[in-house]
Amino acid sequence: MSEFTHFNKQGRANMVDISDKDESGRKAVVYSQVKMKETVWKAVQEGNMKKGDVLAVAQTAGIMAGKKTSDLIPMCHPLMLTKMDIHFEFPEEGLIGIYVTVKTKGSTGVEMEALTAASVTGLTIYDMCKAMDKSMELGPTYLIEKDGGKSGHYQRYSTIEP
Amino acid sequence: MSEFTHFNKQGRANMVDISDKDESGRKAVVYSQVKMKETVWKAVQEGNMKKGDVLAVAQTAGIMAGKKTSDLIPMCHPLMLTKMDIHFEFPEEGLIGIYVTVKTKGSTGVEMEALTAASVTGLTIYDMCKAMDKSMELGPTYLIEKDGGKSGHYQRYSTIEP
Amino acid sequence: MSEFTHFNKQGRANMVDISDKDESGRKAVVYSQVKMKETVWKAVQEGNMKKGDVLAVAQTAGIMAGKKTSDLIPMCHPLMLTKMDIHFEFPEEGLIGIYVTVKTKGSTGVEMEALTAASVTGLTIYDMCKAMDKSMELGPTYLIEKDGGKSGHYQRYSTIEP
Amino acid sequence: MSEFTHFNKQGRANMVDISDKDESGRKAVVYSQVKMKETVWKAVQEGNMKKGDVLAVAQTAGIMAGKKTSDLIPMCHPLMLTKMDIHFEFPEEGLIGIYVTVKTKGSTGVEMEALTAASVTGLTIYDMCKAMDKSMELGPTYLIEKDGGKSGHYQRYSTIEP
Amino acid sequence: MSEFTHFNKQGRANMVDISDKDESGRKAVVYSQVKMKETVWKAVQEGNMKKGDVLAVAQTAGIMAGKKTSDLIPMCHPLMLTKMDIHFEFPEEGLIGIYVTVKTKGSTGVEMEALTAASVTGLTIYDMCKAMDKSMELGPTYLIEKDGGKSGHYQRYSTIEP
Amino acid sequence: MSEFTHFNKQGRANMVDISDKDESGRKAVVYSQVKMKETVWKAVQEGNMKKGDVLAVAQTAGIMAGKKTSDLIPMCHPLMLTKMDIHFEFPEEGLIGIYVTVKTKGSTGVEMEALTAASVTGLTIYDMCKAMDKSMELGPTYLIEKDGGKSGHYQRYSTIEP
Repeated sequence: MSEFTHFNKQGRANMVDISDKDESGRKAVVYSQVKMKETVWKAVQEGNMKKGDVLAVAQTAGIMAGKKTSDLIPMCHPLMLTKMDIHFEFPEEGLIGIYVTVKTKGSTGVEMEALTAASVTGLTIYDMCKAMDKSMELGPTYLIEKDGGKSGHYQRYSTIEP
Repeated sequence: MSEFTHFNKQGRANMVDISDKDESGRKAVVYSQVKMKETVWKAVQEGNMKKGDVLAVAQTAGIMAGKKTSDLIPMCHPLMLTKMDIHFEFPEEGLIGIYVTVKTKGSTGVEMEALTAASVTGLTIYDMCKAMDKSMELGPTYLIEKDGGKSGHYQRYSTIEP
Repeated sequence: MSEFTHFNKQGRANMVDISDKDESGRKAVVYSQVKMKETVWKAVQEGNMKKGDVLAVAQTAGIMAGKKTSDLIPMCHPLMLTKMDIHFEFPEEGLIGIYVTVKTKGSTGVEMEALTAASVTGLTIYDMCKAMDKSMELGPTYLIEKDGGKSGHYQRYSTIEP
Repeated sequence: MSEFTHFNKQGRANMVDISDKDESGRKAVVYSQVKMKETVWKAVQEGNMKKGDVLAVAQTAGIMAGKKTSDLIPMCHPLMLTKMDIHFEFPEEGLIGIYVTVKTKGSTGVEMEALTAASVTGLTIYDMCKAMDKSMELGPTYLIEKDGGKSGHYQRYSTIEP
Repeated sequence: MSEFTHFNKQGRANMVDISDKDESGRKAVVYSQVKMKETVWKAVQEGNMKKGDVLAVAQTAGIMAGKKTSDLIPMCHPLMLTKMDIHFEFPEEGLIGIYVTVKTKGSTGVEMEALTAASVTGLTIYDMCKAMDKSMELGPTYLIEKDGGKSGHYQRYSTIEP
Repeated sequence: MSEFTHFNKQGRANMVDISDKDESGRKAVVYSQVKMKETVWKAVQEGNMKKGDVLAVAQTAGIMAGKKTSDLIPMCHPLMLTKMDIHFEFPEEGLIGIYVTVKTKGSTGVEMEALTAASVTGLTIYDMCKAMDKSMELGPTYLIEKDGGKSGHYQRYSTIEP
């Protein structure tokens, strides 16, 4: 495909017509990450166990943001999400990996919902750690897997090491 | 500093007390980027000139999201932003650079507002291009500069090539 | 049942998967109340008849809040409500009873929507009367009846005198 | 019909019950306009071509507002919109015509969504031009066409020249 | 003035910098109207007295929308409103006049807040009457008076008969 | 005082004028509670320690709702909160006590913000436990203490045992 789908005949953005698309089960899995100083990274993990749970707040914020996607992204259709799950990995020192899975039954995909949830999860981690580290980095954020709809199954084959 | 500022005595997150902090002029500059296939990247730039302006929509979405920051990030204080500006660069093939500047007069900084605006700008570019490229990457997103408040001026000295 | 349904394998909250649950007609009826000084209670009732209708504002606020439930309650699924109705009783001096009925066709129940609507109805009454009485009490708020879904019909048999 | 449909037995507004109404394809087309000084009107059109695209921002705002309709209009049911499109005409000097088309599959019509989108599109044009003209006029705003549902097709036969 | 104030050097919209503008008392008064069949217009007025108060709902919705202005209008600065008042007139058969007064202490004017409140008040009247009349017209909506700030006092001298 | 402050000369609700009120430090402390079966109550406390932290989610939701108060309560002025803190007590079997403290510098009090935060904290606990107990009760919810502003210090002297 080599054309934008979001523009009308005047060349202006619109919300594309999905009235005649069939509803189907849809799923998207997204990855994002936050990179921080090792001391902060350790504090997040300890906080996770003892007291001051950064990740509990971040994950709540992420789920709430996923539900607001069509409020934030102008041409996104509103969708009734049927499942959202966020979990964390600590693949190497200084790195928090964020995995988001979203599902719906609907006429369009849910990658934007998963990407938005992942981004706001990261932003919240940043907010709660920023007094300790101003040099943190959010992302990269990308689609790992997508299922359902006309375009079928998508799986990222990537040499990127998150 | 080695302690989280967002937790109360029960170890639960709270909105930290800024009642006694002086108001001052505050500024934050943030960078983010979207990486995409060159064909899509060219289409975005052409669209930018001819018709179908992806970046006009993305930048409107980014500014609106910046104003919603305290709605999205749980422990963020609400702030009356006095300025927000977003501009784009095309530093190399396949790369769109997003620069966000936010200002306020207030008792706390505006980096979260700038980071949120930059993230949603990127997410909107992604949304409008996703039919043409499923492998796009959002971020890294980070603070370039920060001014005002007790902690003073911060400038990122970075070898990262955005 | 003795397990929380809102936690994933990492022990973190998530939005539980309702993708495979059948849609059915759903209904919830909720009760809440506001307790206030008799002079204020009389003023609310008179205002209701003559001018300055506290309850018209409160009930509008309640209905709008019911539609925002999934925005407020982190793990709530978004739902397309098909009916919402709020009415008031004055069972004894100083007491305003709030009854909320909500309906939907969907894969999950609507008690949270009814409870949220009832709570914000009460909060709005409080707001409009607080200059006259600082000792008001909101609630108790509870489910009276629930219909639809796998768990079937629920009816509160209560000795509580609202 | 000569009765309001939005009031319950206590004479209070409610969200009317659409639980038993069939879902069908629905469509609404709405017109609105902004009247301004000719110098400003020309600047909008030129900006549209060269730089500073008032209408791109206005149309993005309109589409986002259309999705917020049930958040703004108390007794409106939430609806999953399947299409929204906004385009502009310049029928005479000083006049910008706004046409909004909205579609859904659902149990109630979408004229409120189209009217809200059209109103906020106009408000945004006003905001961006107000430094140059304080005497602008928004509206009239009205329904041109409506399709779907029990009441069938509606077409405005109007001598009004938009 | 003959230049848009909302565009940056790239020709893109931004939120203009008001960081150095002094705070002052600000006020705006706005007019809007809804035109409807006389039978409906009478029903609204009677409802207003007996039961089913369309205008109480509309005015609550208008005030809530005024507070959401910076959420709806992309380049609007967030503002702490200090007063909002809406009242209605019935100047001739079939016509409901809507008057909105808004005040703030701040660095920018409040006409957008008053215009947004007036528009949503009208939209809500429309919503509650639309089952009885599909040909209603919203607007014209315009600024009557503005006070405060550098540009000083503005009063509309108009031959328009609202 | 024996008059509502929220009504204008037409007897309609409005947002009262606080333009000329001085800004001062303000504080409100609010109590709410959730009553549940002892088995559920124990599970919440254990979850609190081991995994599945109901209270972390509830408290995040409460803080976010506190910031949305003027969005939910029609006649509430928007306020820039400077501090919000929520903590929990377990005063007897089956009872979770919720204490909310809110501060601002502003022209009006913050009891509505604290009451809203406390209510949504309770609603979220309810949501996450409702699969295990349908008979839970939310509230009573009331003001414990209020400071700042013309009316001065308020302290509830209560025989109520929360």
